[in-house]
Amino acid sequence: MNSTIVALATPVGIGAIGIIRLSGNEALSIAQSIFSKNIINKPSHTLHFGRINSPSPPLKAGRGGEGAVLDEVVLSIFKGPHSYTGEDVVEISCHGSHYIQQKIIELLIMQGATNAKAGEFTLRAFINGKLDLTQAEAVADLISSDSEISHKMAIDQMRGGFSSKIKELRQQLIDFASLIELELDFGEEDVEFADKNHLKTLVNEIYKYVVTLKESFVLGNVLKNGIATVIAGKPNAGKSTVLNALLNEERAIVSSIAGTTRDTIEESVSINGVLFRFIDTAGIRQSGDEIEGMGIEKTFEKLNKADLIIYIFDAQITNQEILQAEIEALKTSDIPVIAVANKTDLCDKNTLQNTFQNFPNILYISGKKGDISELLIFLNTKANELNQSSQTLVNNSRHYEALHKSAIALQDVMNGLETGLTGDFIALDIRKALFHLGEITGEITSNDLLANIFSRFCIGK
Amino acid sequence: MNSTIVALATPVGIGAIGIIRLSGNEALSIAQSIFSKNIINKPSHTLHFGRINSPSPPLKAGRGGEGAVLDEVVLSIFKGPHSYTGEDVVEISCHGSHYIQQKIIELLIMQGATNAKAGEFTLRAFINGKLDLTQAEAVADLISSDSEISHKMAIDQMRGGFSSKIKELRQQLIDFASLIELELDFGEEDVEFADKNHLKTLVNEIYKYVVTLKESFVLGNVLKNGIATVIAGKPNAGKSTVLNALLNEERAIVSSIAGTTRDTIEESVSINGVLFRFIDTAGIRQSGDEIEGMGIEKTFEKLNKADLIIYIFDAQITNQEILQAEIEALKTSDIPVIAVANKTDLCDKNTLQNTFQNFPNILYISGKKGDISELLIFLNTKANELNQSSQTLVNNSRHYEALHKSAIALQDVMNGLETGLTGDFIALDIRKALFHLGEITGEITSNDLLANIFSRFCIGK
Repeated sequence: MNSTIVALATPVGIGAIGIIRLSGNEALSIAQSIFSKNIINKPSHTLHFGRINSPSPPLKAGRGGEGAVLDEVVLSIFKGPHSYTGEDVVEISCHGSHYIQQKIIELLIMQGATNAKAGEFTLRAFINGKLDLTQAEAVADLISSDSEISHKMAIDQMRGGFSSKIKELRQQLIDFASLIELELDFGEEDVEFADKNHLKTLVNEIYKYVVTLKESFVLGNVLKNGIATVIAGKPNAGKSTVLNALLNEERAIVSSIAGTTRDTIEESVSINGVLFRFIDTAGIRQSGDEIEGMGIEKTFEKLNKADLIIYIFDAQITNQEILQAEIEALKTSDIPVIAVANKTDLCDKNTLQNTFQNFPNILYISGKKGDISELLIFLNTKANELNQSSQTLVNNSRHYEALHKSAIALQDVMNGLETGLTGDFIALDIRKALFHLGEITGEITSNDLLANIFSRFCIGK
Repeated sequence: MNSTIVALATPVGIGAIGIIRLSGNEALSIAQSIFSKNIINKPSHTLHFGRINSPSPPLKAGRGGEGAVLDEVVLSIFKGPHSYTGEDVVEISCHGSHYIQQKIIELLIMQGATNAKAGEFTLRAFINGKLDLTQAEAVADLISSDSEISHKMAIDQMRGGFSSKIKELRQQLIDFASLIELELDFGEEDVEFADKNHLKTLVNEIYKYVVTLKESFVLGNVLKNGIATVIAGKPNAGKSTVLNALLNEERAIVSSIAGTTRDTIEESVSINGVLFRFIDTAGIRQSGDEIEGMGIEKTFEKLNKADLIIYIFDAQITNQEILQAEIEALKTSDIPVIAVANKTDLCDKNTLQNTFQNFPNILYISGKKGDISELLIFLNTKANELNQSSQTLVNNSRHYEALHKSAIALQDVMNGLETGLTGDFIALDIRKALFHLGEITGEITSNDLLANIFSRFCIGK
């Protein structure tokens, strides 16, 4: 763990600038050995323009000044503990050429740096106490966030989020646990250090908090990954036309021939800060065409996994009874279904409202004319409701699992207190709860767990 | 030109870090308006960790402190003229999320920055005298350099290269030109300010230098773009097997069926610092298969544009007369052809050397066994010869054109001096030469020319 690690921190590809990041005790001296200016005694948080030289004679200790010029670069110096990892960090800002980046990394490795593993910079930040585990995990979420709401969840979590509250509650529970364990030491003497009523209140408070967090996972997970919104309907109802209108581009092939779409098409759009994953499907009908049949099977798979179903129907040829039957058929699970009357440009408005008077929530649109405002307003409102949720949301399945296990242990503590269980059993359940709460924040951790978490990071972070 | 420009400077994609670059008079104040710490009075070349806040109330002047946290970032401050562009520059190092990068750029634009055009940062560096035109052009070459030699050419040019020499010679010529123009003013009086012999020597020196540079373009261009190396031969000679062995991967489909390869396949490998673009082609034969026929046509097209032809033949079934005829057929242009005997693992070594004793330069390999060492040694040597060339190489067609025009004008000056042309004609030709020499370094320039050059850059540079 004391090695100095190096990695490219910017995306691979051609760009104006590439950043190579070094962290560790020798970050400064290794960078110095290939850099043309003296940086060793420079203050932290300063920038230095100079040259990186290819060693034509073998590299010597001290300043790197020989050989051909590899690049002109700017070095950023961060001295530990005032750096991302808490160690000495040097960032080399070079030209965004793959060749140059590779060569600089090779030179640094020749000088004693080692290739960083995925997430190793953030792992070091965690080990050096710069971040707790949920904060470290949030860094990866932050990088992959692609909508306002997924970004908000990640940044809240990175800035402390629920883990500071859990840490505080856990600390109170630890204090109680020590009092109870003290009682156990004095077992014969029947003294009572811990106020059982006070303990009950505390455990109850933690339990409620943990359960609320746990229950927020369903929404948190949906918001993180986007709302799976299946566009369903009969063949030729105009589903692909509506998708194209939503995306504002010609994504799906449309034709007047029923059964044009066979593969499901997925595209994401951020509406009002919330990501909707729109899934266009093959129209539902009995089909003799084998490939179309496979497409329809896929449609039903997607419907089962949807968070929201937009049911498109052709307003010209659908009456109330047909619509009723079709929507009932879809409402087998509790996934919300919104009925959308398409092709309204070809219908008389008054007739339409008469026909569907028993469906006050129907949205009227014309995909072909690009008039989908009623649908957009509906999605906007939906997004707004979700977005406004000021609640702390858990969206990480590891946290969900630990919260779930904490809740069970806390429930056991409460039962034990209720039924007058002896102190040693209660102490055992408290220890279990402390363990699982500690897993969330990383106060309790194992190498396997850390390896598992940080291997999902990109290299360079 | 006085606006403050902004762009993402790192490649698009998910990475640990993204850099957003601001340049212009208001770079510091615009960055300040969305950043949580005071940076206005901080010294140049310093780094500042803090928060970028989304404005929930409309942004106010001064420090950006309201609203939700968008990201935790590090700001680099470079105060003009000590910056890349020569203006005030702020670089914002944020998390490598597309969402965050877009949001920050949006905020900066709301605060008065404008989107940078391709190459606009480097254009400003040129306008502010930080780089001359060849140096600016070299920045783009440096970013796209993908081999040691293309990198070397770019960095030499970025660090001054031939343009400083041209500038110096041009200045001497300017001094002469003014003396000659002075003579013209005193035309009636027949005075002579300029030493014609001295002028002859100078023009001759410049002419020689310009012609040498101009002639280096053929090699420079080949080295920049890679050596187009066509792998040709009869069907089933083992061309694709040799390509795969050179690439050390299964790139091309190989089979024992003659005519397996139809499309030409191109892959680049850097050997000894020089890029070889290997082009595997359809085998040359009369074919009834239409698609194969089109492939063979493509082969001849590629052969005409090759820098080097590797002619692979099946050593088992080829005799000296056949080989002679085949190679003669290829040697219609002056592109070098190297004959390579393949499948030697299936032949007796002594018999082989007897068969081809009149071809001492044949390379003996077995693509299938991966034994291509003779071919690799040949390519290595070839690369070494090119790589060792200590000559300054021109690899930019714009420079080539300007050098060509300068040479013509200088030739005219020399002819004029030889034939005793009057001063006004000589002055005219000198002015032409000065114009074209100045075009190379950018001392003479036009908006069209600049637009054309910098539009080829990536955005953010």
